[in-house]
Amino acid sequence: MPGKQPAVIVFDTFGSVVDWRSSLIADLTAYGDTIGVSADWPALVDAWRAAYHPSMDRVRKGELPWTKLDALHRGSLDRLVADFGIKGLSEADLVHINLGWHRLRGWPDAVAGLTRLKSRFVIGPLSNGNVSLLTNMAKFAGLPWDMVFGSDLFQHFKPDPETYLGVAKLMDVAPGQVMMAAAHNGDLLAAKSVGLMTAFWPRPLEYGPHQKRDYTAEHDFDIVAKDIEDLAAQLGV
Amino acid sequence: MPGKQPAVIVFDTFGSVVDWRSSLIADLTAYGDTIGVSADWPALVDAWRAAYHPSMDRVRKGELPWTKLDALHRGSLDRLVADFGIKGLSEADLVHINLGWHRLRGWPDAVAGLTRLKSRFVIGPLSNGNVSLLTNMAKFAGLPWDMVFGSDLFQHFKPDPETYLGVAKLMDVAPGQVMMAAAHNGDLLAAKSVGLMTAFWPRPLEYGPHQKRDYTAEHDFDIVAKDIEDLAAQLGV
Repeated sequence: MPGKQPAVIVFDTFGSVVDWRSSLIADLTAYGDTIGVSADWPALVDAWRAAYHPSMDRVRKGELPWTKLDALHRGSLDRLVADFGIKGLSEADLVHINLGWHRLRGWPDAVAGLTRLKSRFVIGPLSNGNVSLLTNMAKFAGLPWDMVFGSDLFQHFKPDPETYLGVAKLMDVAPGQVMMAAAHNGDLLAAKSVGLMTAFWPRPLEYGPHQKRDYTAEHDFDIVAKDIEDLAAQLGV
Repeated sequence: MPGKQPAVIVFDTFGSVVDWRSSLIADLTAYGDTIGVSADWPALVDAWRAAYHPSMDRVRKGELPWTKLDALHRGSLDRLVADFGIKGLSEADLVHINLGWHRLRGWPDAVAGLTRLKSRFVIGPLSNGNVSLLTNMAKFAGLPWDMVFGSDLFQHFKPDPETYLGVAKLMDVAPGQVMMAAAHNGDLLAAKSVGLMTAFWPRPLEYGPHQKRDYTAEHDFDIVAKDIEDLAAQLGV
């Protein structure tokens, strides 16, 4: 356990708290069956996620004005549906598929671990998702957040410092009283560089067979845990 | 029950969900006893609340830049401590007293009613309080919000339209899919004027012996309830 405890713990969400890949593959496969549209849904999901960072970079570089992740997802989806040659999707189907990112399920330890942490700490997602996405996801997956720190509150995506420092500002605490918790070394390194506490656990199945990194903590983080329940245990709750 | 149902219900908080007057009087009286400082705490609380609207109006009129309610409360408190001739309060005491607004208790129907409503709707406070105040209050009082719509997210106080419309924008719904719920006619009338659904219930003891208005719904609101549990019942949850 670190010498001091945080006041607020914020969580990376996609991959760290929820299993986006399995959730989306199951959701889209079932929906495709329902509407009678066949496609290589697992490959679409992997390609969709691969478009995630490049789409946010267009905002970071100023090629696009501030754009919510839902809209970036939709732009990528439209391109991929064409690239994959998927036929027969109506506008309502595309809207439904795009909102698949609102219907992700937690990893098995997520709800139990977060519920324990909520008993002592203010907890929230600090995600590149927008507030509506994260709020709807929390309802769907039963994530017991106290507050939802969507990227649209800051009009910045991680790892921009405005996101990490924005949490401290909204909660009226020092950056060092906020702990960033994630399964991604890069996110934690950025948070640490602006003064946040950090906690890591691995999600070696996040990318299914395509995982390439983040198997272990690569920097000196305050806590290295097995999962979110273990994080709670290490923080004494 | 109205013909259509909202997607999101946002609640006025001070007076409508939490009993600020009884909570603060009990909190400050107990704290005064602990530190051995005597004062007419009920009168201080009433005067503090009386300073609430004038302090926000200074921001609305541009006399002050955007200022969180915590800071407005502190300015009013400092003036009132002097006006009341209260002696012996340290800076730490003043900080603690000012955070009394983070330690308010719900009216008896609040937690039960909100818990029922949360089962179907996204619920959150839409308050002139800042995010930290409202998040800390929710932890203290057990209010099961999905998302906290503090005024600092919009840098506007109610009844400015940016607050009501800001909820719809963050949640990606039409204004007509958001219901404003409050014990104050003025708040609801402002929400209604920009297209929100509305629900009223009275809190005839909000100001203790000094209540002067809001005994009944004075406009054509979508729902008029007895309290938050009755609101849940009328919405069928």
